Amino acid sequence: MDELKERREFLKSTLWAKRRDVQTDQKKGLPQPLPEKPYDEEIELINLVSPENFTVGDMPLREVISRRRSRRKFTDEPLTLEELSFLLWSTQGVREIFEGRVTFRTVPSAGARHPFETYLAIHKVEGLKSGLYRYLPLEHALIFLREIEDMAKKLIDASFHQRFVGECAVTFIWTAIPYRTEWRYAFTSHKVIAIDVGHVCQNLYLAAESIGGGTCAVAAYHQEKMDAFLGVDGEDEFTIYVAPVGKIPSSE
Amino acid sequence: MDELKERREFLKSTLWAKRRDVQTDQKKGLPQPLPEKPYDEEIELINLVSPENFTVGDMPLREVISRRRSRRKFTDEPLTLEELSFLLWSTQGVREIFEGRVTFRTVPSAGARHPFETYLAIHKVEGLKSGLYRYLPLEHALIFLREIEDMAKKLIDASFHQRFVGECAVTFIWTAIPYRTEWRYAFTSHKVIAIDVGHVCQNLYLAAESIGGGTCAVAAYHQEKMDAFLGVDGEDEFTIYVAPVGKIPSSE
Repeated sequence: MDELKERREFLKSTLWAKRRDVQTDQKKGLPQPLPEKPYDEEIELINLVSPENFTVGDMPLREVISRRRSRRKFTDEPLTLEELSFLLWSTQGVREIFEGRVTFRTVPSAGARHPFETYLAIHKVEGLKSGLYRYLPLEHALIFLREIEDMAKKLIDASFHQRFVGECAVTFIWTAIPYRTEWRYAFTSHKVIAIDVGHVCQNLYLAAESIGGGTCAVAAYHQEKMDAFLGVDGEDEFTIYVAPVGKIPSSE
Repeated sequence: MDELKERREFLKSTLWAKRRDVQTDQKKGLPQPLPEKPYDEEIELINLVSPENFTVGDMPLREVISRRRSRRKFTDEPLTLEELSFLLWSTQGVREIFEGRVTFRTVPSAGARHPFETYLAIHKVEGLKSGLYRYLPLEHALIFLREIEDMAKKLIDASFHQRFVGECAVTFIWTAIPYRTEWRYAFTSHKVIAIDVGHVCQNLYLAAESIGGGTCAVAAYHQEKMDAFLGVDGEDEFTIYVAPVGKIPSSE
């Protein structure tokens, strides 16, 4: 029980009262971290459908909210590239860039830090081959990272045999790059990073419902296996949340 | 830096790999905690507008998402009772009750635990006197807790002088009752509790935008002062997130 009590402290904002005593990297004048993980400039960008051209997502908010369920069974139907574009814009899309490094996005983030990267294990999306991709919010584009043999099987194994994590159209896997937030908020960062990924994922729930799809987010994944799957170091960047998305039977 | 590294562990799901070794209260057969904090049965319930009768919230999802901003300046306009009802239903509304104690709501929560209570500091809502209220999701009703002298001032003081926390139509203050989640997930609970309140708050951002309002959530509050404001013990129930809501100028 003492361990539980100690862990509850994480959910409190007690540390904010001491914030003035903390010498953050921002206060020290250290450079602001990049809002997007760099990528090989030789790599080909895969353009997505622009927000101005979206024809999906028209469902009234009230209807979307009332339809939302945890969806763990999906049809075999692929997503279209426009649908995927809409899901990505809804969850991490950039609305405005300020002074080159601060992004304002479709979702809120404490101090506009946006400490996440979005990886996609694409199983069934029209026009895209199966494999691991990363979303570039600044470019509103994808990059293809690599093919992964037995991709669905590996995802299921990395999530304690929850089959729907691999049996879907696309598995969203968010990583945290905590320094983006720590640069400004130091040791008060971690509560808000967790809350922020909840903001992001709730928009995915709603955007997915609005296109006749759904999701059910998963925190019960195997940390080391999922990080190895993505090829991230598990320290400066690590998996924080996972959300398999697919279409749902129209009768539901 | 070591302290930061240690705090990052909270954001990982490493502990899930050990979940089978943990003797949770659920596995021990202890009773499932209530999904709603009990209240004095003599108290008068204040009925809200039922979801079937909502006339607000019709804005298309795509438009709502593209409008969302962090809103810290509100007009003096009050919210209507229907608007407040819609915000409460969007954030914690109960869709289905299963076996008396499990609720399925408009927002997801790990294991359907829903470890939150919603307190409202009502400044300007039509038909309601100013004061502190609590939402009852099972009844879709409010209870009036008490009048608070200098309520706006106390809220501003409890949030390090962020004026908009008190200068709004209604301040949403969510508490966590962590045992609801711990009963099932023991020491893997706390990451998901933080994520869950992000899910809740994102629906508030969107629902508020859809009625011509907005919010900007605040994790930078004074824990002890905010808990004292609500009258919660700070241990089994404590403030986790705060969101002031109001109408915004129509030009924005």
